[in-house]
Amino acid sequence: MAENGAKRIRLGMVGGGSGAFIGYVHRIAARIDGDYDLVAGALSSNPDTARESGRNLGFADDRIYTSYEEMAVKEAARPDGIQAVSIVTPNHVHFGPAKAFLEAGIHVICDKPLTSTLEDARALRDVKPKNGAKFLLTHNYTGYPLIRQARDLVASGALGTLRVVQAEYVQDWLTVAADPGNKQASWRTDPKRSGAGGAIGDIGTHAYNLLRFVTGLKTQAVSADLTAFVPGREVDDNVHILLRFEGGAKGMLWASQVAVGNENGLKLRVYGDKGGIEWRQENPNEMWFSEFGKPKQLLTRGGAISAPPAASMNVRIPGGHPEGYLEAFATLYSQFAQVIRGDGAAVEGLLPNLADGIEGIEFIMASVASSQNDGKWTKFSEV
Amino acid sequence: MAENGAKRIRLGMVGGGSGAFIGYVHRIAARIDGDYDLVAGALSSNPDTARESGRNLGFADDRIYTSYEEMAVKEAARPDGIQAVSIVTPNHVHFGPAKAFLEAGIHVICDKPLTSTLEDARALRDVKPKNGAKFLLTHNYTGYPLIRQARDLVASGALGTLRVVQAEYVQDWLTVAADPGNKQASWRTDPKRSGAGGAIGDIGTHAYNLLRFVTGLKTQAVSADLTAFVPGREVDDNVHILLRFEGGAKGMLWASQVAVGNENGLKLRVYGDKGGIEWRQENPNEMWFSEFGKPKQLLTRGGAISAPPAASMNVRIPGGHPEGYLEAFATLYSQFAQVIRGDGAAVEGLLPNLADGIEGIEFIMASVASSQNDGKWTKFSEV
Amino acid sequence: MAENGAKRIRLGMVGGGSGAFIGYVHRIAARIDGDYDLVAGALSSNPDTARESGRNLGFADDRIYTSYEEMAVKEAARPDGIQAVSIVTPNHVHFGPAKAFLEAGIHVICDKPLTSTLEDARALRDVKPKNGAKFLLTHNYTGYPLIRQARDLVASGALGTLRVVQAEYVQDWLTVAADPGNKQASWRTDPKRSGAGGAIGDIGTHAYNLLRFVTGLKTQAVSADLTAFVPGREVDDNVHILLRFEGGAKGMLWASQVAVGNENGLKLRVYGDKGGIEWRQENPNEMWFSEFGKPKQLLTRGGAISAPPAASMNVRIPGGHPEGYLEAFATLYSQFAQVIRGDGAAVEGLLPNLADGIEGIEFIMASVASSQNDGKWTKFSEV
Amino acid sequence: MAENGAKRIRLGMVGGGSGAFIGYVHRIAARIDGDYDLVAGALSSNPDTARESGRNLGFADDRIYTSYEEMAVKEAARPDGIQAVSIVTPNHVHFGPAKAFLEAGIHVICDKPLTSTLEDARALRDVKPKNGAKFLLTHNYTGYPLIRQARDLVASGALGTLRVVQAEYVQDWLTVAADPGNKQASWRTDPKRSGAGGAIGDIGTHAYNLLRFVTGLKTQAVSADLTAFVPGREVDDNVHILLRFEGGAKGMLWASQVAVGNENGLKLRVYGDKGGIEWRQENPNEMWFSEFGKPKQLLTRGGAISAPPAASMNVRIPGGHPEGYLEAFATLYSQFAQVIRGDGAAVEGLLPNLADGIEGIEFIMASVASSQNDGKWTKFSEV
Repeated sequence: MAENGAKRIRLGMVGGGSGAFIGYVHRIAARIDGDYDLVAGALSSNPDTARESGRNLGFADDRIYTSYEEMAVKEAARPDGIQAVSIVTPNHVHFGPAKAFLEAGIHVICDKPLTSTLEDARALRDVKPKNGAKFLLTHNYTGYPLIRQARDLVASGALGTLRVVQAEYVQDWLTVAADPGNKQASWRTDPKRSGAGGAIGDIGTHAYNLLRFVTGLKTQAVSADLTAFVPGREVDDNVHILLRFEGGAKGMLWASQVAVGNENGLKLRVYGDKGGIEWRQENPNEMWFSEFGKPKQLLTRGGAISAPPAASMNVRIPGGHPEGYLEAFATLYSQFAQVIRGDGAAVEGLLPNLADGIEGIEFIMASVASSQNDGKWTKFSEV
Repeated sequence: MAENGAKRIRLGMVGGGSGAFIGYVHRIAARIDGDYDLVAGALSSNPDTARESGRNLGFADDRIYTSYEEMAVKEAARPDGIQAVSIVTPNHVHFGPAKAFLEAGIHVICDKPLTSTLEDARALRDVKPKNGAKFLLTHNYTGYPLIRQARDLVASGALGTLRVVQAEYVQDWLTVAADPGNKQASWRTDPKRSGAGGAIGDIGTHAYNLLRFVTGLKTQAVSADLTAFVPGREVDDNVHILLRFEGGAKGMLWASQVAVGNENGLKLRVYGDKGGIEWRQENPNEMWFSEFGKPKQLLTRGGAISAPPAASMNVRIPGGHPEGYLEAFATLYSQFAQVIRGDGAAVEGLLPNLADGIEGIEFIMASVASSQNDGKWTKFSEV
Repeated sequence: MAENGAKRIRLGMVGGGSGAFIGYVHRIAARIDGDYDLVAGALSSNPDTARESGRNLGFADDRIYTSYEEMAVKEAARPDGIQAVSIVTPNHVHFGPAKAFLEAGIHVICDKPLTSTLEDARALRDVKPKNGAKFLLTHNYTGYPLIRQARDLVASGALGTLRVVQAEYVQDWLTVAADPGNKQASWRTDPKRSGAGGAIGDIGTHAYNLLRFVTGLKTQAVSADLTAFVPGREVDDNVHILLRFEGGAKGMLWASQVAVGNENGLKLRVYGDKGGIEWRQENPNEMWFSEFGKPKQLLTRGGAISAPPAASMNVRIPGGHPEGYLEAFATLYSQFAQVIRGDGAAVEGLLPNLADGIEGIEFIMASVASSQNDGKWTKFSEV
Repeated sequence: MAENGAKRIRLGMVGGGSGAFIGYVHRIAARIDGDYDLVAGALSSNPDTARESGRNLGFADDRIYTSYEEMAVKEAARPDGIQAVSIVTPNHVHFGPAKAFLEAGIHVICDKPLTSTLEDARALRDVKPKNGAKFLLTHNYTGYPLIRQARDLVASGALGTLRVVQAEYVQDWLTVAADPGNKQASWRTDPKRSGAGGAIGDIGTHAYNLLRFVTGLKTQAVSADLTAFVPGREVDDNVHILLRFEGGAKGMLWASQVAVGNENGLKLRVYGDKGGIEWRQENPNEMWFSEFGKPKQLLTRGGAISAPPAASMNVRIPGGHPEGYLEAFATLYSQFAQVIRGDGAAVEGLLPNLADGIEGIEFIMASVASSQNDGKWTKFSEV
């Protein structure tokens, strides 16, 4: 990634006070390539937490907020106000800040899923961003170099006509009922804050977005069987979905938070009539590429294949020097900085946007509806 | 495995003439532990092939047959006649020989799937074996030591209450239309000879049998989406199935013959509320075993865990000295020899039998029916 | 492997009575391809063990011996006498039987290492086999299909001029002092029975033979550091060796019986100026093949590369159906049967022979001498 | 890692102008945890490169230098002068800046190996740092969380008394003579700029440092065989070393830049009389841990084992979310920031320092001497 220390973008953050997981991740991602200065935030609605967290990050006191509405107004009015904001609140508090900052002319970087309801998601489509403010949805797994290369391989025809897609995202951290004191677990298993889905929204949408990003296939319908295995849990913790794509390809998607022995097992396998690829996130610097009738090849990030531009664009260090989750996340931040600077033509199509976010919510809602309908094949247009 | 060279069983074979794949595999399996002498056969209905193949194997000329009916009658009448027979013909020629030999009082070892129609499968149930002749269905993957250990782990409660089962069996050898001269491919893609299913019968039944063997879960219903991707193919070559088990566990099963880069990718993953196991056939000497909240353990065949009896019973050589497909197959032969000698109490429950064969055909037929019904959840009792 | 049931060879065995490990392995290896009938043996010098073991294997009582000398004389005199014999005794009882049977005109299959002393090894060179009796040393790891393919790749120039060889064979079963009742451990750690070396003789010779088999490089000298880590152990249990080959290539060899966590970790890596290969015995159906500047390829036994004849000759079942240790062992038996039948032209150069056995003992003795000399580079001609 | 945005340290850099690899890596490492502001540099001795690179990073023009001597003097005199400096020049330009900045009272972060000569290394020991300026040597691989955990496991006695250490660091990028235009390759293969060693200095020292860091074993002597395989190369590109440690443990170390198929294959295996560990840098989020007689366990970074403090201290994100090379590098930066702030008691013993640097040069020189002496066992005190 090119360094642009002289053109750093002033960044704010909503959510992410001390103890929050994803806000911390966003901050590292914003720092890695040196494209942002984090200078303001409504890190918490609790004034003490907001102040302590903000001071620890070096914010001036007058840029420590407890309300995103106030923050949007005041920052938009400052000559040195933030140019972009990261929204890292629970799902049901995405819509409000996203709308407020876009309408204030401040670029928005929003965690996924887009919103907690389909109404909110579709309503965001109608927001009029001031001054062309842009929107980035952090489906961070799309930032992995080999995922970019996978997308390029598909687009190049190296796999031929696609036939079968297998996606899975499995964890085990919710195998037992979550300790009520576990902040991460509590809102993710509360339908009011996470939305209608549990595992399907939290991780299923990542798997779905990833397969869409790599394959470009358009979903025709889904047939789902969602389960809440843990007694008392109000949202699904295991998701079995069959997919049909336009043009005839078929898919399976498994998401689970109760698969003992799995930490963060996101995996994608795609097969066409000429070749196949297999990638798993836990060792993201390797990808299998098979051409029919030839030995399998192990592609490595930054390795020996003549990588197409999109893949190589986001490799920082040579093959064998593993990059990880944070670098992939940082790539979205860094390439969004290019977009903000008006230099993002080469990458804009690669960055997850509002339409991806809306489709993610449609995917959740169609799956939930199908599952409630005994697996009836359901189109997104039906929800 | 104990050696019993002094008590070898006289064996015959139906099918398996020169050029046949599975007959050759059965012969090696019969030889490995030294429990059988192969002395007779109707290896082919072509007299020249039958004679040449039989002589090559050292059969006396009067024990080389071209008709299984004749073979059953004559061998049953000889004082040195065969005590058991292996049936290794295409699926639609399983029923006839199985019935003939059982009624002649000769033990039957039959390749899978049991038959090419559900009618035939159920009719076999009504055959009266003479002299207590026994039946073995060679779902050979159940012979792997770690699969036996997986079954023991489940039965012991080490995984807790089962929740999720993921089974897959994927290959790529039928990615393109088969060469008409390919004997293996031609009958396996001909619905008249293989039965109603393609991939589902050839390999899907193995995956299904394996998950049933390991988990003991009873199937409540299936929802299937079967596809024939290769233009002109009359049977499915890719199978997506959702499963519901009695008691609430859920499953997914993927079988494919068009997943480029996969040779013989049979894989089983089982998760309960306490633990999980993961095993893949292509490196069958290792199995992951996870207990919730602890590091994953790599169990090895013959390795350091205190193996329950059923698993250790069929380990020939120490950990680190890999056993493979042929040894697992041989275990079925060797343990069936124990049964034949009247010494099989410890193993009989482990050997796939007629009931397993019938359930395999029901699984095929229910899946085909579900797929034709747009994925309707279908019980085996409905077909 | 071709089946030749009609031309089975009558086989005897010296050593291998009940409880012995390697005799059992030899018997399975002899059975797999159906080339031998085991009909006689001096399985033990203890008459009871000899009789019980022989009867269990179905030997006639008059072919159960307690002395290999008597067995050689009597079997040579019978019209139906054995044509070949397997010697599976401890190392110090290889020389006597090998000499006796060769001089009786009976083909010899001998376990490794060849003898327990260099004198014995070199003396065997001067034995005059009667009737052209042949000799096979069971360096069984050379029978793995991918090892044959590795040898072919090197010979074909695919790796270019060889530079670096890394061989290792590591286990952990002797990490603690062996239980005196452990038959395997007791003779292997007794210098009188195993010879001057411990780990170096038992497993180091396998690693050495394997690298010689694959690379064809000739050893110029060795520098060794041998250690006996377990208190009281009289032979080495860990071996560090540097190698120099004629022509300039260099090597390292590590053998250990005290490397906790390793079961039977034989591994070979070879690098030339054009390419490299990496193979490990515990998953022997895969081998990495790298060409400089290209992605690594995963070759599979029986897989998609156009395998040269030597490799494909000993593949029984298709890629993805794992073959293991016993099949590799069986390949030596089966191909030696070809040699015995006078049909072995294509394979004779592939089978480990007396010269390999003598070089193995020279390797042990030169390494021991070097280690005693503070790592002085030592040639085989100096011992 | 704790965030301390309010207490950022002002950092300078020597070397690392545009096109340099390791300077870029240091800058990312300095940014990840937000502990530094990079504000000044002598990025190049070429004024144009220095200016262009400095401006791109956002330096004020008066803090862009072309001479490290000038930079040390001027920055030390500024009230807002740098508090620490990163030295990322070729090896022969480490000594000068290190001395200059330490004597100016500025903390030094220096790339490895410490210097290009043993004289320089030892001379650094005699430098008197002003105001207690501290020194960090970026043996970055010690920053991996699982390496810290490995060290803790050894220290805790979980492996028992150590016996065998196997270290390797293998690459293939210098398999052929380097293009003269390749800046990285040219200085690394030039003995004047890299020092007496090639592979041994560039990567061998990393492997050596890593094994020392994890095991705590003290080296008694080395026996080496260094080779320059590529025609015309003036420094070694392949290194075979045997090690003896005080107390009786033994080791092997292999470093190579000509092992085709290896990108950055740093691997460490350590065995004691109770347990063993195995770790490889290319997938650094996993480590094998074996206790004798039990199944191997796969430890994961941030995973289920009760990690001792030192390991957990540098985990940013949960298990399954891979961290990589840059995060491990960043840990050194971040923990050195703790030291600079006077808050480093818990970590100071973990950070590679001057003594480690001197020992690294001794390791190079003793190995070179041994190799020139036909592998004579050589102590560090002899060079």
